[in-house]
Amino acid sequence: MTVGKYLIRRLEQAGLKHIFGVPGDYVLEFYDLLEASDIQVVCTCNELNAGYAADAYARIRGIGAVCVTYGVGAFSVLNSVAAACAERVPLVVISGGPRLSLRKGPQPCLLHHTLEDDEAELDIYRKVTAAAVILADPAEAPRLIDGALAACRRQHRPVYLEIPMDVVEAPCAEPGPLAVDMAVSSDPAALAAAAAAASEMLQCAARPAVWAGEEVRRAGAQAELVALLEHTGYAVSSSIQGKGVVPERLAGYVGIYRGQAGPEDAREVVEGADVLLCLGVQMTDVNLGSVRPRLDPRRMVVAYGDEVRVKGSSFLRVGLKDFIHALRAALPQGNVNLSRVKHPSEALKREFNPQPEARLTTARFWERINHFLERRQVILGDIGSPMLSAAELYLPDDAIFLTQAFYLSLGYAVPAALGAKLAAPHRRPLVFVGDGAFQMTCQEVSTLIRQGLNPVIFVINNDGYQVERVFNDGPYNDLQMWKYHLLPQVFGGGWGCEVKTEGELEAALAKAKAEADSLAFIEVRLDKFDLSAPLSRMAKS
Amino acid sequence: MTVGKYLIRRLEQAGLKHIFGVPGDYVLEFYDLLEASDIQVVCTCNELNAGYAADAYARIRGIGAVCVTYGVGAFSVLNSVAAACAERVPLVVISGGPRLSLRKGPQPCLLHHTLEDDEAELDIYRKVTAAAVILADPAEAPRLIDGALAACRRQHRPVYLEIPMDVVEAPCAEPGPLAVDMAVSSDPAALAAAAAAASEMLQCAARPAVWAGEEVRRAGAQAELVALLEHTGYAVSSSIQGKGVVPERLAGYVGIYRGQAGPEDAREVVEGADVLLCLGVQMTDVNLGSVRPRLDPRRMVVAYGDEVRVKGSSFLRVGLKDFIHALRAALPQGNVNLSRVKHPSEALKREFNPQPEARLTTARFWERINHFLERRQVILGDIGSPMLSAAELYLPDDAIFLTQAFYLSLGYAVPAALGAKLAAPHRRPLVFVGDGAFQMTCQEVSTLIRQGLNPVIFVINNDGYQVERVFNDGPYNDLQMWKYHLLPQVFGGGWGCEVKTEGELEAALAKAKAEADSLAFIEVRLDKFDLSAPLSRMAKS
Repeated sequence: MTVGKYLIRRLEQAGLKHIFGVPGDYVLEFYDLLEASDIQVVCTCNELNAGYAADAYARIRGIGAVCVTYGVGAFSVLNSVAAACAERVPLVVISGGPRLSLRKGPQPCLLHHTLEDDEAELDIYRKVTAAAVILADPAEAPRLIDGALAACRRQHRPVYLEIPMDVVEAPCAEPGPLAVDMAVSSDPAALAAAAAAASEMLQCAARPAVWAGEEVRRAGAQAELVALLEHTGYAVSSSIQGKGVVPERLAGYVGIYRGQAGPEDAREVVEGADVLLCLGVQMTDVNLGSVRPRLDPRRMVVAYGDEVRVKGSSFLRVGLKDFIHALRAALPQGNVNLSRVKHPSEALKREFNPQPEARLTTARFWERINHFLERRQVILGDIGSPMLSAAELYLPDDAIFLTQAFYLSLGYAVPAALGAKLAAPHRRPLVFVGDGAFQMTCQEVSTLIRQGLNPVIFVINNDGYQVERVFNDGPYNDLQMWKYHLLPQVFGGGWGCEVKTEGELEAALAKAKAEADSLAFIEVRLDKFDLSAPLSRMAKS
Repeated sequence: MTVGKYLIRRLEQAGLKHIFGVPGDYVLEFYDLLEASDIQVVCTCNELNAGYAADAYARIRGIGAVCVTYGVGAFSVLNSVAAACAERVPLVVISGGPRLSLRKGPQPCLLHHTLEDDEAELDIYRKVTAAAVILADPAEAPRLIDGALAACRRQHRPVYLEIPMDVVEAPCAEPGPLAVDMAVSSDPAALAAAAAAASEMLQCAARPAVWAGEEVRRAGAQAELVALLEHTGYAVSSSIQGKGVVPERLAGYVGIYRGQAGPEDAREVVEGADVLLCLGVQMTDVNLGSVRPRLDPRRMVVAYGDEVRVKGSSFLRVGLKDFIHALRAALPQGNVNLSRVKHPSEALKREFNPQPEARLTTARFWERINHFLERRQVILGDIGSPMLSAAELYLPDDAIFLTQAFYLSLGYAVPAALGAKLAAPHRRPLVFVGDGAFQMTCQEVSTLIRQGLNPVIFVINNDGYQVERVFNDGPYNDLQMWKYHLLPQVFGGGWGCEVKTEGELEAALAKAKAEADSLAFIEVRLDKFDLSAPLSRMAKS
């Protein structure tokens, strides 16, 4: 057994089937080991894109990994790691470092890709990870690897492992079976007290409602949430970061809550609730729709990060899953009781009648897309208007919604589609990406083609950074106008087209459906100032 | 006067005419100020590319700047800042931060683009800059700005300035005239002793030679170096990082020294010297051509970083410029005396006779390019084989050679061409970039087109990461095969073509010359295993 093989074995045991990255000389020995393993190496065009792909992969499979060379690679991928840190994604970063024998002691010369400070990279990674280590001592490496991987999966944060070239082949102990205790053990007394306090408050409520967020998924508490909702009949809204944790078919589902920036129906229910049960919602400006929240803490029960707060009291060491389970037991059965509010699926009952010659508008595009969604898709909304609109689509059962809704790196969705498709091969990714975001990471369409994948990519070309235009317009929001739809030809696969009318959109969607195994690239031309409903609301609020 | 305006005034005073970046909501107010200033805002497709552009701009103009939004922008640009730190480039990074009023004290919610640790970004930048500050207090801001800009220019290192949104418009003191004392003051006694010791050693030498490096440019000592060389008649070689500091027309010039990885003539002179005068050469594996240097320190006089070493003695506080000047005074006049070694310009005397139907080879391509170079060009060699070959071209007078020869970030050259052309508008950039490097940052061709610039871009398509193939071949060195030459059509300007024969190359070069104001994009198809001379040497060594 060697340190390199040990690390690979542990990644395999954790369920990793693919690793993303760009090769570089300090990491080639390790790449050779990867090529010989059961893990498939997926090379991207640049490192940042590898990080985004691995992030999406990790969100679906519970672990993702990116492997790069020292310095140039590790610093290029950093933003995706910071994103994974902020959004709590279990991402493993492996950086192949120069030989220790050339780094320690008097050096005959400086090594390319390095800074004078030999630990700068480690120190930088410490700021954006749950654990950052250099595997300098082969004897210690198994402990460090196991510790880092456990931190990654338990804390849902990225970790950094630097493996010097001359340590890759160094002998170390055999790995035993993988033992990671993922369960959070709640304090039984605190759990009981929290559930009692919360249920008491909820039982006095005339208009209770639930706001559910992304931590429900991390806590593995989706089934418990559904059971609670079916049992109580509470109205339920999702946060934008958590879209998908609540099955949208549920009778009590009212859509995304985002304050005045979100849809009116959900806002009425959430802000109108006399007791609001917040389950796993991160209190961010994106989720709240503003830096000035409109929710009154005195009327809320808040469960987040192993803590439950009810009125003035705080209950510590209460796991979210246990809390939801206990609440269901403590609350009486009830029925969904929603007045005035339409279920989001209502929108689908209105038939979409394309007017072939009509110039496509933003509203009509999204209305049509709502009818295009199906089970087993992964819906990827890139940052900006596409994410906001996609979040208000009616998500079919067994479809996944994926975005970076809090940290908000433009350009995430195209490389993320690569990671998502490899993580869930039976699902087709639908990518919605604005022109500005697309220009950031466009080359990864090439890797999707290279891997023979079949996403449908909608580049929403409205001639600039539209969200920024709403807040503060200036020449800096303009972009070079590309002929986006020619890119599949450049990259050597799939097919592309440009869509300006409703008829052209129909034809493109039909072709995408018919050619189900091929990458479809649909450039959607929309007017610069034709704002989507969510953007108009944001502009007003 | 406001903090935002103060910073802009100082940048103007330092000679900045362009700033590169990508807008984001935390930095839009500052972008509005920039738009109203004499500094032109040049928006790139993504932040990393903005950093590379600003780096090249700084190398030519003595200062460059990149302006991005907090988190997503600042972390995406980091690799270019680490590169500037390693390569000692005076690059100013401006990050627009969230309002202080929302960051300090009890926070109603987390802010998008941020990490929980409010100073993580600052701490990370401290590792790759000469100074990193948050302009939190408007009264202190002028002092912090002046200090950072002085550190940037004196130390030739990047600096980081974070300007929170609500500080941009905060009042502060008026800026006075810009006073940066750039001169290094040598210790007169140490200088005299160093010059005496060095000249004594050199006067005893039968075969003295000079090896000159990139610090000669930073020290502003190019004229002194030429005077010394013309006075003594010493043979002179350049380091690859320093290519261009020695005018290649000089009779004593023998080419680039890179140990066994470099050309034979220069190696013979440098390794055969009984005293080698190393002026401003960084001792790196790239400059030395190996991690095991073949130069004997006992036969060297080394001047680097305000220190001169002669045999066992070290002389501190001796500026490079002063030292070269003093050496000239201390050494007797002499004549160039080179036996066996051909001047690199000899290669140009052999006429290039294209054979129109002949399949283009790597050797013939570079031979032809050697004849294509002219005064007033900027030659940009991207990392890998193109950089190595371009470094062995004969550089005409008043041409600039630009690369990132030590830190070696693939993908540098295309965005760097943007910075170089804006920094030196009367020069035409020639970009030599491999397919692997090109895929990393390809979108910046669009910005070159958008700005109406006229580089000639040679994408050397040899189907993979060729340098890595030499060291360690594997499937990870393969790339998706693009139709690169179609990209100008996608990006909306310039023209592209594919070149497979010598005749096609002639036609493309003629067109590039005729259409001098247009971007030319020449895809050069070469065989996967057709190694250049420098690569063959590296493979052997």
